[in-house]
Amino acid sequence: MPARRTVFFISDRTGITAETLGHSLLTQFSIEFDQVTLPFTDSIERVDAAMRRIEAAGEATGFRPVVFSTIIDAEIRNRLRRVNAVVFDFFDTFIAPLEEELGLRSSHTIGRSHGMTDARAYNVRIDAMNYALSHDDGAVTRQYDEADVLLVGVSRCGKTPTCIYLALQYGIYAGNYPLAEEDLMSGRLPAVLRPHRRHLYALTIRPERLSQIRAERRPNSRYASLRQCQYEVARAEGLFAQEKLPVSDTTTMSIEEIATTIIHTCQLPRRLY
Amino acid sequence: MPARRTVFFISDRTGITAETLGHSLLTQFSIEFDQVTLPFTDSIERVDAAMRRIEAAGEATGFRPVVFSTIIDAEIRNRLRRVNAVVFDFFDTFIAPLEEELGLRSSHTIGRSHGMTDARAYNVRIDAMNYALSHDDGAVTRQYDEADVLLVGVSRCGKTPTCIYLALQYGIYAGNYPLAEEDLMSGRLPAVLRPHRRHLYALTIRPERLSQIRAERRPNSRYASLRQCQYEVARAEGLFAQEKLPVSDTTTMSIEEIATTIIHTCQLPRRLY
Repeated sequence: MPARRTVFFISDRTGITAETLGHSLLTQFSIEFDQVTLPFTDSIERVDAAMRRIEAAGEATGFRPVVFSTIIDAEIRNRLRRVNAVVFDFFDTFIAPLEEELGLRSSHTIGRSHGMTDARAYNVRIDAMNYALSHDDGAVTRQYDEADVLLVGVSRCGKTPTCIYLALQYGIYAGNYPLAEEDLMSGRLPAVLRPHRRHLYALTIRPERLSQIRAERRPNSRYASLRQCQYEVARAEGLFAQEKLPVSDTTTMSIEEIATTIIHTCQLPRRLY
Repeated sequence: MPARRTVFFISDRTGITAETLGHSLLTQFSIEFDQVTLPFTDSIERVDAAMRRIEAAGEATGFRPVVFSTIIDAEIRNRLRRVNAVVFDFFDTFIAPLEEELGLRSSHTIGRSHGMTDARAYNVRIDAMNYALSHDDGAVTRQYDEADVLLVGVSRCGKTPTCIYLALQYGIYAGNYPLAEEDLMSGRLPAVLRPHRRHLYALTIRPERLSQIRAERRPNSRYASLRQCQYEVARAEGLFAQEKLPVSDTTTMSIEEIATTIIHTCQLPRRLY
């Protein structure tokens, strides 16, 4: 069994940037890591406590811990450098060359990237999320003309999480409409969607996977049966082809991949960065 | 007016890691950037097209564009290096020292960090989100015993987006209960919450901000009036103090900050990394 290293993500704010960057690197190595996030490390006392914790992990495992850091405050960051561990500091690495290229000094202000510095951005995000929640599952269709995109597909193919992700991450207004059996039988786009044709994006999924997902909610139901899933997916895909809708097969895609593909294909406006 | 640089985030997958890195760094400079994400740059043809686009931006603005890259494929990455722009390559920078420290070769596999490599993690995430959606706003209270955390607070203080963020990002089961006027009048914890006391986390907000937020939904209503907001917040804060609940004032916090604070305070289990 390979040795288990402990990895720390440390930041003077949320630590989300350190986690995201660290995870991206760690997924390139096929070993398991024990992962610990130490957010809000914003004083000498706290960084000292963090350093004790990091070194204790090193002693317990017999391996130097790996530390990914996004600490902005120079004094705290310099102190962290003394820890008996490997420290990868994202700001140390990139800020100096970026300052040189831009011909500007950085502000060395903590936590702007996941803090609330911009009330407008906050409102956009919350509005988009409220939109996604109230236009989920075809419940409300009257504001479809405000949608940046409307996802269509059979029940449980990934529409809801994608809409919410688009809202939270990008401030995109995304509604979704689940194709019900009567829609599938008619072989036509539901009337409520027709005026919004250019905002439609279709999601599909392999029937075997759909059946698995549905069975977790309603085991042994007709709804979850492979036969029913095969029927619905075949009808839905026929409709998408006939209407020439852009379509993604979500079977092996993460929510992030589905969302990014939709933005890219439809050239959607990102309201948040 | 300062010159506006164009910044590109380029990746052979979603580009989310490149965006996270780039945004964190750019927020340290108090100038505005034009930002473009070029995801799915996974072939020589696509990187050539991306390079043309990057260089065109440089010619149009008169400034070398800044490029943040997370391309794993060595051939594509090397080709990108020829572009007439400043390229910050995340993997080039960190993978080699990490390989050395770990004594392992990296897999050079694209896109694992935001791809669906783990069906279990996917299910946890979707289950947690379904939980958040079905336990939003006190609509369903019967599965409160499954919650990792239950957020309580007055209407519109940030409970719903926080619950959804906790689910999507960390696979945490978070429900929420809005304190209605009868709850506030009684001065006691609602009966439905009492068995779950140790999972409660309170959110509060400054009445002025609450009034603004509510006015966007129901302008000129009693619900949005400053007086009503002052009353509700005062009663809610009294209840939180009396019950000794952990509490965050969300007035100037982002969703990420609220979520991270709750995880940190309650030592919640992260089911996703």
